[in-house]
Amino acid sequence: MMKKVGIVDTAFSRVDMAKFAIQQIEQAKQICNSELTWLKTTVPGHKEVAVEALRLLEQEQCDICIVFGWVGPKELDLTSAHEAAIALAMAKVQARKHVLECFIFESQHEQDALFEVASQRAIAHAKSAISMITDDPAWVVHSSIGDREGEANASVLEAID
Amino acid sequence: MMKKVGIVDTAFSRVDMAKFAIQQIEQAKQICNSELTWLKTTVPGHKEVAVEALRLLEQEQCDICIVFGWVGPKELDLTSAHEAAIALAMAKVQARKHVLECFIFESQHEQDALFEVASQRAIAHAKSAISMITDDPAWVVHSSIGDREGEANASVLEAID
Amino acid sequence: MMKKVGIVDTAFSRVDMAKFAIQQIEQAKQICNSELTWLKTTVPGHKEVAVEALRLLEQEQCDICIVFGWVGPKELDLTSAHEAAIALAMAKVQARKHVLECFIFESQHEQDALFEVASQRAIAHAKSAISMITDDPAWVVHSSIGDREGEANASVLEAID
Amino acid sequence: MMKKVGIVDTAFSRVDMAKFAIQQIEQAKQICNSELTWLKTTVPGHKEVAVEALRLLEQEQCDICIVFGWVGPKELDLTSAHEAAIALAMAKVQARKHVLECFIFESQHEQDALFEVASQRAIAHAKSAISMITDDPAWVVHSSIGDREGEANASVLEAID
Amino acid sequence: MMKKVGIVDTAFSRVDMAKFAIQQIEQAKQICNSELTWLKTTVPGHKEVAVEALRLLEQEQCDICIVFGWVGPKELDLTSAHEAAIALAMAKVQARKHVLECFIFESQHEQDALFEVASQRAIAHAKSAISMITDDPAWVVHSSIGDREGEANASVLEAID
Repeated sequence: MMKKVGIVDTAFSRVDMAKFAIQQIEQAKQICNSELTWLKTTVPGHKEVAVEALRLLEQEQCDICIVFGWVGPKELDLTSAHEAAIALAMAKVQARKHVLECFIFESQHEQDALFEVASQRAIAHAKSAISMITDDPAWVVHSSIGDREGEANASVLEAID
Repeated sequence: MMKKVGIVDTAFSRVDMAKFAIQQIEQAKQICNSELTWLKTTVPGHKEVAVEALRLLEQEQCDICIVFGWVGPKELDLTSAHEAAIALAMAKVQARKHVLECFIFESQHEQDALFEVASQRAIAHAKSAISMITDDPAWVVHSSIGDREGEANASVLEAID
Repeated sequence: MMKKVGIVDTAFSRVDMAKFAIQQIEQAKQICNSELTWLKTTVPGHKEVAVEALRLLEQEQCDICIVFGWVGPKELDLTSAHEAAIALAMAKVQARKHVLECFIFESQHEQDALFEVASQRAIAHAKSAISMITDDPAWVVHSSIGDREGEANASVLEAID
Repeated sequence: MMKKVGIVDTAFSRVDMAKFAIQQIEQAKQICNSELTWLKTTVPGHKEVAVEALRLLEQEQCDICIVFGWVGPKELDLTSAHEAAIALAMAKVQARKHVLECFIFESQHEQDALFEVASQRAIAHAKSAISMITDDPAWVVHSSIGDREGEANASVLEAID
Repeated sequence: MMKKVGIVDTAFSRVDMAKFAIQQIEQAKQICNSELTWLKTTVPGHKEVAVEALRLLEQEQCDICIVFGWVGPKELDLTSAHEAAIALAMAKVQARKHVLECFIFESQHEQDALFEVASQRAIAHAKSAISMITDDPAWVVHSSIGDREGEANASVLEAID
């Protein structure tokens, strides 16, 4: 059965993350035993991604969405991102479908690292989205592996004998 | 098809931002291949904009709304604006339509700059609203251009070769 | 057409703000060309105003509500008021009707000024409520006048020629 | 007509507040001209009280609920209580019925005072609940009396002549 | 009647808490007079647990859910966990069923203690879940016992004679 990934990005963003996500989906098409397709739209900023994701899930038959947000370095930018995240919580709970949030916070990274962080996270979120909608046993969300979505995994903790 | 922009502003505001947004829409009418119209109402303060936007979207057939809020300089003003933003999140998710938030925070700007910031942002939000509802290919929301809605764009980041 | 203002106040409050609001509505009856009426109920504290306002709007046919809250001076009182405000956001968005919030924060005023602030704000919110529901052209919510609901207006900013 | 008070408490709590609330309701039965009854259930912690209150209001025909929460002394306990309060806001607004929140914050009181504070507040909230559901004119929620729910009332402010 | 526990964990987690919860349910099957079963799914991170829990409650006929989240040590991780908790509040209130939140905050524990804390909490939450859905009188949620879900109980406070 065809599976459709909705992708929402913003004019505000400084890195074209959707491009990397789409490349990943296109690659996955070759090797995944589910039929995959995608639909992308752009909104001005992260305050608009919740309604747009809801539109893709409810009106465009997407099975899952990835939203790419970019958060400026100021204190108020963090508040604004928090409000956007609450709107996303409303949207995904109302749609009963997953919306993966890939938000890059400028204040958390060196300027020189931003492009690499953003592009790697975009790819990791695209892989996660595919794993969540496909029935292909080669694509699965693994439990408790310390996965950090594009960065090195955290160590897994076990009982000390 | 006629497209209608709802505009909500407040008695609290110190700059008539709606006026600039309406001028922008009137100008756009001349050059945009969609029929555009607008409807404006005023409420006391930003705590009222969510319900008013919902009214314009649901009862007055607006396709999108822009809400103009003005946030005073005190700590509690920030809390109040945050609560207004959460109400807006509820309203837009329930309406399944976009509501662009143009809030001016006094604490973030020099007094002398407030008028210029507010009027430029009003114009930028009006342009965004038009781009989101029209089918005219000349009006489009561009992806990942570092757009800062009335201020100079942020630089776009690319891979370093 | 008869217009009805719902008024909710609390046992917690230290000033009988509802009394001033009702006096204002009674005065307005004489000079406003709409028929006005009101209904008042009291709840223990501001955590109860959202449900009570919803009850007045949905079951008692009120066209608008004013809720009078009183916020103590402690840090946790601010958190509690924030939670009350979020509940109010939910109530007004669900009712699709306006609920004007007149909350007095003890921490923001000198003790000696509290009575005056509270009574003036109550009157100002009553005037706002009437302006929002009446069709009388003498009662209108003016746009962008720096209105501060019972305190001196803030200055309006214009372009510098 | 029979009126039913729902009571929700937690395993987490260090004081059996529900016991005091139930004693108060049993006493009130003797002197209140409404028929009163109550139903009590226990959940693990305050994160569960919202759903449980909703269950009592919607499925067990309770007219009102009192929820007894206990908040530990750490910073994260405050965040958790805030999240519980937001869930309660959702529950009461959806049920269109009142849910009185009696949360004890350990960080706000001396250890030696906690039992007294908790038991007095439980009694005060039970009285409030009865006042809100009975038609007995002897039981009423008084407006603007500075009521502090189990502690000494705050002073009422009047105009200075 | 068969009772079904939904279990949601994440790829992000560093401890396989679901494993301990499932062991506890399997043990309980031997000694509890209700028929118990469980269903487990894995999502990328805690931002996804609300929708997944809602899916298990609404579409997979689970009677209750336990969600296992893992919160990193940074300030933004706390904000993200708070947003996840608000989404969970929405999900459980909409489903009218309980969702037990077992979130481990790295910032609150020594690294060496994390495995023990996480595994003990997982077991405690599984016991709570069983107590909430079974009719077996041997499994009950006790009122006001200072229960700390996997850690030593807090002392219970009584009246001083």
